[in-house]
Amino acid sequence: MTKYNPVTPEIARTLAEICGESHVVYRDAERLEPFSHDEIPGTHYRRLPEAVVKPDSAEQVAAIVRLANERRIPVTPRGAGSGLSGGTVPVCGGIVVAMQRFNRILELDKANMTITVEPGVIANDINEYLKPHGLFYAGYPMSVEMCQIGGNVAENAGGGKAVKYGVTARYVLGLEVVLPSGSILNLGGKLLKDVTGYNLIPLLTGSEGTLGIFTKIILKVIPRPRFQYDLLALFPDSDTAVAAVPAMITGTGITPVSIEFMDGDAFRQGCLDLNETLPFLDAGAVLLVSVDGNDPEMLAGQSEALGRYLQKGGASEIYVADTRADSERVWKIRRSIPEAFSQAFPRQSGEDIVVPCASIPAVVTECGRLAAKYHLAIPCYGHAGDGNVHSRICAPADWSDEHWDEVLQALLRELYAEVARLGGRISGEHGIGCKRRPFMASTCAPEFLDTLRAVKNALDPNGIMNPGKIF
Amino acid sequence: MTKYNPVTPEIARTLAEICGESHVVYRDAERLEPFSHDEIPGTHYRRLPEAVVKPDSAEQVAAIVRLANERRIPVTPRGAGSGLSGGTVPVCGGIVVAMQRFNRILELDKANMTITVEPGVIANDINEYLKPHGLFYAGYPMSVEMCQIGGNVAENAGGGKAVKYGVTARYVLGLEVVLPSGSILNLGGKLLKDVTGYNLIPLLTGSEGTLGIFTKIILKVIPRPRFQYDLLALFPDSDTAVAAVPAMITGTGITPVSIEFMDGDAFRQGCLDLNETLPFLDAGAVLLVSVDGNDPEMLAGQSEALGRYLQKGGASEIYVADTRADSERVWKIRRSIPEAFSQAFPRQSGEDIVVPCASIPAVVTECGRLAAKYHLAIPCYGHAGDGNVHSRICAPADWSDEHWDEVLQALLRELYAEVARLGGRISGEHGIGCKRRPFMASTCAPEFLDTLRAVKNALDPNGIMNPGKIF
Repeated sequence: MTKYNPVTPEIARTLAEICGESHVVYRDAERLEPFSHDEIPGTHYRRLPEAVVKPDSAEQVAAIVRLANERRIPVTPRGAGSGLSGGTVPVCGGIVVAMQRFNRILELDKANMTITVEPGVIANDINEYLKPHGLFYAGYPMSVEMCQIGGNVAENAGGGKAVKYGVTARYVLGLEVVLPSGSILNLGGKLLKDVTGYNLIPLLTGSEGTLGIFTKIILKVIPRPRFQYDLLALFPDSDTAVAAVPAMITGTGITPVSIEFMDGDAFRQGCLDLNETLPFLDAGAVLLVSVDGNDPEMLAGQSEALGRYLQKGGASEIYVADTRADSERVWKIRRSIPEAFSQAFPRQSGEDIVVPCASIPAVVTECGRLAAKYHLAIPCYGHAGDGNVHSRICAPADWSDEHWDEVLQALLRELYAEVARLGGRISGEHGIGCKRRPFMASTCAPEFLDTLRAVKNALDPNGIMNPGKIF
Repeated sequence: MTKYNPVTPEIARTLAEICGESHVVYRDAERLEPFSHDEIPGTHYRRLPEAVVKPDSAEQVAAIVRLANERRIPVTPRGAGSGLSGGTVPVCGGIVVAMQRFNRILELDKANMTITVEPGVIANDINEYLKPHGLFYAGYPMSVEMCQIGGNVAENAGGGKAVKYGVTARYVLGLEVVLPSGSILNLGGKLLKDVTGYNLIPLLTGSEGTLGIFTKIILKVIPRPRFQYDLLALFPDSDTAVAAVPAMITGTGITPVSIEFMDGDAFRQGCLDLNETLPFLDAGAVLLVSVDGNDPEMLAGQSEALGRYLQKGGASEIYVADTRADSERVWKIRRSIPEAFSQAFPRQSGEDIVVPCASIPAVVTECGRLAAKYHLAIPCYGHAGDGNVHSRICAPADWSDEHWDEVLQALLRELYAEVARLGGRISGEHGIGCKRRPFMASTCAPEFLDTLRAVKNALDPNGIMNPGKIF
């Protein structure tokens, strides 16, 4: 275990010299508190940082990191704090580097179809900015209205459009990053391909702030599809719903934008949270299948073909949202589910399992078995089109913390063992952070962990960058 | 400089014990010769290996690498040898590990849309295998009929369909790889997303055999588009042709499969090589624009829209190939260009510049300027849709080797400086290998090279894996 040094008043003064007095928080528990946690429900993954700094240039970030590296002080980068794996919780104390002032959209290059942004820009704002230009950034995490693009890149965020458009990494063409040494590294650029040396961009993308702090991001943008059709298909139960997906994809040859799955409980929780009353609240499970494009006739044809396969797969009813307003209404329900559960169940664990697509029914079945065995609820929802299931393990209200902790550990061991057996992994898009860190050793091969550690040690020999995560 | 040990008769005997006598070549210059070079024209990048081994299991590869690592002997992995950067030339001697016996297609998983192959499978054979299943692997390097998938992954091959489908890395879901330590590492799987630890797959993809040897590859496959339309657009000159591309993409909102560029010389060389006589051999430049999909009517509409923009951009004539046979005839010309030039000009250098798409005209102009200045020819062709220009620097036949070497160095210094100024890099898809290695220091930032070296040293502390490449 690395030994870190505390943030002394002298260090705090140096931080103030680097960033300006008003951009440093030190020895002020009330103002430090918002930087002590992310969006994981409960109080388990919390720790006050010793100091928070809010730099606004790469040079300031570099100076902070150099100082921390020299003095062996942990540095934890932070975006919006909307993460779900404790990635931004300063579990070893030290300095939180809050990137909120890096909130500028720097350049839209229409000829090269790129947008250059700072990491603190809210993901949704990128698309609002692009809309009048007929362009589109395809990242769409469910927290799109609050999460920051730097966090999306750090976690390699997935989201609702990954089936067709892929995850965040596909769109990151360039990065300016401050390495743990404090040097500023520029990677990539406005280039659609590049094999000049190892491809470090996808290594840093998804490295959860453990290899460096992004200070500039170049994203690929694409022509904005003018229309989107959403099919809401009701099923009697979860097994039938998820089993309908592979046949639909291979049968139609269509790659939908999204194939979202919500079991009845998850769907109702989302509706409840929004005071949304829909005529089909008693469905056992719901699939939300979306297609987009520029030709409404083609989309209508695709919707029909997809609908036919959904019906063949057991859908009892199918509703089509073919206007942006209807579409937004349905998607809002999907996006609200995580928050809705967080409010409703103080003791819960949001899982982020990913398996080969065809194995989703097996995961849902296993969650049902475990729910019965341990006498709790495990509603499931998530991205059926890419095998990413968000099982939400929810404890009854009257359980003690001790009982909950004990049951959760036992349950997760069983669940993760089944996931491994199915060729899956414990995180598809939320990351390992500190939340899933204790399960890495039991779910990953030793040579995989050794290789990760070798890379980490090569770039961060003093272990100052977001310690206590992943490893 | 690392000091390596020779392959002694004792080591050769151990290799024979690992792979079987008949799968080891040692002290037999004639049989070692085919493993001394790749497809770079000329004799500059050649070196006989001390031994060639042909393993056929991951365990055998691991045993070879462990031995080499213990004894400090260079190991150079080799696929089809179709590379263009000397990546598989054993420049430090040692052992070439020829992967030709890893030629099995192991599993097509239709439910999960993946195919698992060994690295020695020829890229085109994957698609021949998938065709009757209505499926498709989107990699399409111009050497598709001979190159092996392991080499494609090692080089992160681009090719003719990258505009729409992206490069090789997008399709690599899983890897089994023998690390320089000799341990066997399994990465990924049949998973469409995965953030469980750093994403090592895209780090290894494109690492040019310097970080390990692949022994199994899981690729994502997609539904096979049933139709492809190709537009062959003739332009009076190169500048007009490449300048027409950005307006066509942004104006139509269509992402073509391919946007290939050939200047008049390149196009004629390709035709000549195939004894192909087309009615438009006097064009100053040609764009080959392809769209694919399942709806011929939509493709006809897209072809028309693209054609309108090409005409607006200065195309004098446009031919449409709307059958597979016509399409193949046109693409065959494009694919034959590299080989055609290799045959025609003994002293030449095939470049692989990549720049932001909108800067392609500037590169073509610069090549024209340099050709005039240095009194040689620089025909250009390549992937206009992703900024990747293959400038082919061809020396007059009467030049001496010394004069050619001297001019080439001076010319490349100028060309690469302009590429850097445009925000580009020296290799888009062929790799650095030993051919471009001398230019890394002058075209890359020191902190970039330091980071690459740190990663390399972390995974290969003894520097045995494909030494003399990249760094």
